[in-house]
Amino acid sequence: MTDATTPAIVRKDGRAVDQLRPVTIERGWSDQAEGSALISFGKTRVLCTASFTNGVPRWKTGSGKGWVTAEYAMLPRSTNDRMDRESVKGRIGGRTHEISRLIGRSLRAVVDMKALGENTIVIDCDVLQADGGTRTAAITGAYVALADALEWARGKKFIGQKSQPLIDSVSAVSVGIIDGEPMLDLAYVEDVRAETDMNVVVTGRGLFVEVQGTAEGAPFDRRELDSLLDLAVGGAAELAALQRSALDAVAGA
Amino acid sequence: MTDATTPAIVRKDGRAVDQLRPVTIERGWSDQAEGSALISFGKTRVLCTASFTNGVPRWKTGSGKGWVTAEYAMLPRSTNDRMDRESVKGRIGGRTHEISRLIGRSLRAVVDMKALGENTIVIDCDVLQADGGTRTAAITGAYVALADALEWARGKKFIGQKSQPLIDSVSAVSVGIIDGEPMLDLAYVEDVRAETDMNVVVTGRGLFVEVQGTAEGAPFDRRELDSLLDLAVGGAAELAALQRSALDAVAGA
Amino acid sequence: MTDATTPAIVRKDGRAVDQLRPVTIERGWSDQAEGSALISFGKTRVLCTASFTNGVPRWKTGSGKGWVTAEYAMLPRSTNDRMDRESVKGRIGGRTHEISRLIGRSLRAVVDMKALGENTIVIDCDVLQADGGTRTAAITGAYVALADALEWARGKKFIGQKSQPLIDSVSAVSVGIIDGEPMLDLAYVEDVRAETDMNVVVTGRGLFVEVQGTAEGAPFDRRELDSLLDLAVGGAAELAALQRSALDAVAGA
Amino acid sequence: MTDATTPAIVRKDGRAVDQLRPVTIERGWSDQAEGSALISFGKTRVLCTASFTNGVPRWKTGSGKGWVTAEYAMLPRSTNDRMDRESVKGRIGGRTHEISRLIGRSLRAVVDMKALGENTIVIDCDVLQADGGTRTAAITGAYVALADALEWARGKKFIGQKSQPLIDSVSAVSVGIIDGEPMLDLAYVEDVRAETDMNVVVTGRGLFVEVQGTAEGAPFDRRELDSLLDLAVGGAAELAALQRSALDAVAGA
Amino acid sequence: MTDATTPAIVRKDGRAVDQLRPVTIERGWSDQAEGSALISFGKTRVLCTASFTNGVPRWKTGSGKGWVTAEYAMLPRSTNDRMDRESVKGRIGGRTHEISRLIGRSLRAVVDMKALGENTIVIDCDVLQADGGTRTAAITGAYVALADALEWARGKKFIGQKSQPLIDSVSAVSVGIIDGEPMLDLAYVEDVRAETDMNVVVTGRGLFVEVQGTAEGAPFDRRELDSLLDLAVGGAAELAALQRSALDAVAGA
Amino acid sequence: MTDATTPAIVRKDGRAVDQLRPVTIERGWSDQAEGSALISFGKTRVLCTASFTNGVPRWKTGSGKGWVTAEYAMLPRSTNDRMDRESVKGRIGGRTHEISRLIGRSLRAVVDMKALGENTIVIDCDVLQADGGTRTAAITGAYVALADALEWARGKKFIGQKSQPLIDSVSAVSVGIIDGEPMLDLAYVEDVRAETDMNVVVTGRGLFVEVQGTAEGAPFDRRELDSLLDLAVGGAAELAALQRSALDAVAGA
Repeated sequence: MTDATTPAIVRKDGRAVDQLRPVTIERGWSDQAEGSALISFGKTRVLCTASFTNGVPRWKTGSGKGWVTAEYAMLPRSTNDRMDRESVKGRIGGRTHEISRLIGRSLRAVVDMKALGENTIVIDCDVLQADGGTRTAAITGAYVALADALEWARGKKFIGQKSQPLIDSVSAVSVGIIDGEPMLDLAYVEDVRAETDMNVVVTGRGLFVEVQGTAEGAPFDRRELDSLLDLAVGGAAELAALQRSALDAVAGA
Repeated sequence: MTDATTPAIVRKDGRAVDQLRPVTIERGWSDQAEGSALISFGKTRVLCTASFTNGVPRWKTGSGKGWVTAEYAMLPRSTNDRMDRESVKGRIGGRTHEISRLIGRSLRAVVDMKALGENTIVIDCDVLQADGGTRTAAITGAYVALADALEWARGKKFIGQKSQPLIDSVSAVSVGIIDGEPMLDLAYVEDVRAETDMNVVVTGRGLFVEVQGTAEGAPFDRRELDSLLDLAVGGAAELAALQRSALDAVAGA
Repeated sequence: MTDATTPAIVRKDGRAVDQLRPVTIERGWSDQAEGSALISFGKTRVLCTASFTNGVPRWKTGSGKGWVTAEYAMLPRSTNDRMDRESVKGRIGGRTHEISRLIGRSLRAVVDMKALGENTIVIDCDVLQADGGTRTAAITGAYVALADALEWARGKKFIGQKSQPLIDSVSAVSVGIIDGEPMLDLAYVEDVRAETDMNVVVTGRGLFVEVQGTAEGAPFDRRELDSLLDLAVGGAAELAALQRSALDAVAGA
Repeated sequence: MTDATTPAIVRKDGRAVDQLRPVTIERGWSDQAEGSALISFGKTRVLCTASFTNGVPRWKTGSGKGWVTAEYAMLPRSTNDRMDRESVKGRIGGRTHEISRLIGRSLRAVVDMKALGENTIVIDCDVLQADGGTRTAAITGAYVALADALEWARGKKFIGQKSQPLIDSVSAVSVGIIDGEPMLDLAYVEDVRAETDMNVVVTGRGLFVEVQGTAEGAPFDRRELDSLLDLAVGGAAELAALQRSALDAVAGA
Repeated sequence: MTDATTPAIVRKDGRAVDQLRPVTIERGWSDQAEGSALISFGKTRVLCTASFTNGVPRWKTGSGKGWVTAEYAMLPRSTNDRMDRESVKGRIGGRTHEISRLIGRSLRAVVDMKALGENTIVIDCDVLQADGGTRTAAITGAYVALADALEWARGKKFIGQKSQPLIDSVSAVSVGIIDGEPMLDLAYVEDVRAETDMNVVVTGRGLFVEVQGTAEGAPFDRRELDSLLDLAVGGAAELAALQRSALDAVAGA
Repeated sequence: MTDATTPAIVRKDGRAVDQLRPVTIERGWSDQAEGSALISFGKTRVLCTASFTNGVPRWKTGSGKGWVTAEYAMLPRSTNDRMDRESVKGRIGGRTHEISRLIGRSLRAVVDMKALGENTIVIDCDVLQADGGTRTAAITGAYVALADALEWARGKKFIGQKSQPLIDSVSAVSVGIIDGEPMLDLAYVEDVRAETDMNVVVTGRGLFVEVQGTAEGAPFDRRELDSLLDLAVGGAAELAALQRSALDAVAGA
């Protein structure tokens, strides 16, 4: 982002503009779910579980294809100010709906529904602590939980030994422009100041699944858009490597 | 999209790949609202009204700034199969929430809230008939309703004679890749077949407000993304011209 | 209402006491619905669509009879002050329920459910603009949409070629007493001032389907009731003629 | 209804066509409410309570006028088949809404809101047992509860010693046509068979507050309507006498 | 509770500390329900109905076992200040849920579900007037309604002539500590002052079904707990006797 | 529970009947909340956060007293079978309500509301993993979070330096009878088999705050009740010691 002779812009937490926060993936966190991961992007912590069940929703029955869906939610005190519970309010807010749908689409983009067969996987992403980037952490962790649930299902012979429903990996990262400077993986204090904010979902092969850019302050031009995409592709490649190494480790070890 | 020697791909409705459907803007359709427009993108018809009220929501009171928000909904038989009413279901779906929020953000991007003062404008976009592109038609029509409501407020001296809350115009258009070919302004039959679907919100000056691209089928690469953006920018420029000519006409005439 | 020697009372909009507002019926307004009409009673505009589906609700299955039901709603800015959406409030108000039920009962009164067979027609009446008499305009327009949907079903052979589910036509009109004077088809400014307000649903043959009279101000006596019924029967006959001529025209022409 | 030489039609329960069921009014049933009455129309039993509170809803504040409103509900096993509770379903049905509104309007028609002052009375009508005519019994009993609550308020000096908010009494009765014969005060077995069903709300002076006639089976003509109104006016006069004698008795004695 | 030489503490209503309020059980109050009882504990009056239906909820189908469940609710003006209806609020409160569940569990504890067979009994306990102890009166009355519904079912041969689904009777009573003194069957004015409040459900044989003690003020020690249990067991024995004599009487006589 | 000569009954997980599962308290787990603890009772893991805010609900304003309340919820895949989210269902279930109320009452029993002053503490107990005893773990962890939030408030001078709102500590434990044998701290597999199940909330001084015993199978007698209370008091004393040592440690260390 910055040419060699300019001293690197240092962010509040000391990161370079193209640097991710520390990422940890605690695979197999749950004793109950078929697949699970507790993922952290800095102080953002999301518990992702994958629940595998035989059968599909009625509208898919008989299609020979499976279904993957996701639900996202935040604990009421995951944030700095306590939020009311959506269960208490009796309705789910627009933001929650939007992110749940985004996670579901992102995961479905890397699943071969034929290979999954008539089985359903529900991914739950519950934000235990929020410090920006909860949706991108959720997608990145959800992929690990999903991979483990599929492995579990293969072990149980719910899907064929040779079936490989995963056709690619998927991760997500946020990028944004702050004081005119494109930056990777915004923490909350950065996110609220960003003029433009973009969430990018990228497969392990580097293809785009989702590009969601929003001008929070001033509209952005094509050159800025390009810079943001560059940063995002780089960050996503790092996340893909972290997912691989988490999945290569012995689960729960 | 197609080089000069290739015969242009002809779409189901006879359009070229970079051609909008016929667009009509019936400004001042409503006798009740401060601003209104009945907009058509082909068979898609959306009634947009702008309701101006003095005062702002509690969390903005005393800020000296105004507020613009939007609500989107579809009539139950705007679609080919009748949908249940969200009022009857007792809850608003995720898609409705998502689009309402998108319209609101898009309009706010071109409003100077200081110049608006402590006044609120609620934009209602009700889809009377749906044939793809309802959210982009809604944004495009909503801008016209908004402009008229602001003019009305200036006439009533609710905003200063020299205040110009509109800092730019805004319109939106969908683009998508069908059978590998990027196309502009998808009708419903095209939309359901698109591998990638993108909604782009662009200001009159050609800057991006929102870029929302989704791989419905296969993930897309950077080159495809660029082609889609090119198409969208072109279509949005045409829409901006149509908005200008609607607003230049004598309202209701 | 007024004897020959008294100069006719002139209403705010210049009408005689026994005069309807201008009525227009735009038949076949929707490209999606099996039957539709955009009806205007003066500035009141209601979009009526009829959705035909095979089968009936579970509690009618096997009865050999069909079902007709209706839903009424107002767009939030159909009125002079914007109303909150019922979908946003999460519940349908009493007035909406009441009118939906009234429309459904009124239409069922002229349908032979045996001749309809096990098919369902849902009528949606959405008020695009409100200026008094929305429920009576809705019933009157709904009948036209219903008639077209039945014609469509006959064309599709979903009902027998010789079946005639319609046993009569039906229309509705409001009447009220203002400053002691009975008047036909109240506009909003009249409606709010009326001491007594009555909605009357009448078949093409002149029989009553519904009589709903309410003393908003002072209770009314038998003579006033009789005058109101006389006025209503006259207005309904005019509406029946307008329905006939709309249905005689070539749809969509 | 039947001329002198025809033997009177005898109804299932032995009543003449113009005869009410036995009516009892247990005034002051509740130890908690400011006014109350447990009313029976045959086996139909409705507990009516009137709750008096100082102040009015926000939209009436400063008007110097009071407010009277009503809520109607049925116990789940008031009917022959148990119904689900509306609280459990999470929404109030159309019929409940409709009847609550009817009761409120009927009572307001006999209250001088200026004389009531800025006070609110909420009438609750809970059907303990249902056998037809629950809404008419509710209105009739509600008037007694209302009268007692006003007397209580006068005792407490919440309304002036010389104020008389009640400008008339009000009662209600159902009438209907069964096998072509108009009948008064339908029990449930009659109600389900009625071709036309009408609820009529009448003041003590014999004026109409509400006339709600519905053709359940065949539409009805003017002559039938007249017969029904005659029957209703007669029944209402009897009910008014019963209300008077209940109110003349020493409450709770 | 008080030793022989101390003059008995006299409660506001003149009762001794170990004395129940006057209890009446009006068995067969409802003409509609299979079993019913209107029970009074002093001014607390609860209408209990038992609705018998063949079949069980889906999750019990095929088990050969029946199901008993309960719903509790208060009329809005059963209390000294009117409460909003839960149907109007659109949600059931925690207290209502809690008590409904308590009643259901208490009754199920004395029913042999095998002997009941695949039948369901729904108990509705509606508080017509509340003066403390509504849940204990509800359980005590519900048992009588349940017994009659089972007798009805045996008469209808829905359960075998020799089947006896009731394995014991069940009643409930409240106890509490006021000014350091344990007392039986608290009226409302006592309940609000109690430091500790306990509801105890006891079978006819004197065994415990539920013990729910709560320190409203100061926590309580083991000795106090023992005193409360002693009082409750004594009160429950009296209630069991009253239930027996109600059931021995000829129903409805 | 077992006399010296009988070999101790060994439970599925090897515990003695009067032995708690391993308990861990991770104090200060959250970076956002004023107080927090992640508590484990065996595999049951509950995240407890305490949110301190100035001011009290309207009905307490001006009383000079504070307020403490609690909300309990389970993550959808905290259990072996995934449960639907209450936010998605749009309503909170009876069990959730019941437990939230229990936690709130338990904590309030050890808080001096005067010393707290007009401040509110909301405790959120979210079950991340469930294996029996979630409500008792929640209460035990909530106390630690509450204590830290009060310490935080003292540091911020929101409560006086000499104020000590905590008048005691509080913890909770479940006990139950399985195969006739009373046991402490039931795991899920034990809980489903228990004939009687009791949750007991006890202060650090050994006084009872709540005793909630339920006969799931057969009713229980006084002797069994006494055994269960003995076990519970012993377990609670151990938990109180663990709370003290967690709070004596340096938070977050």
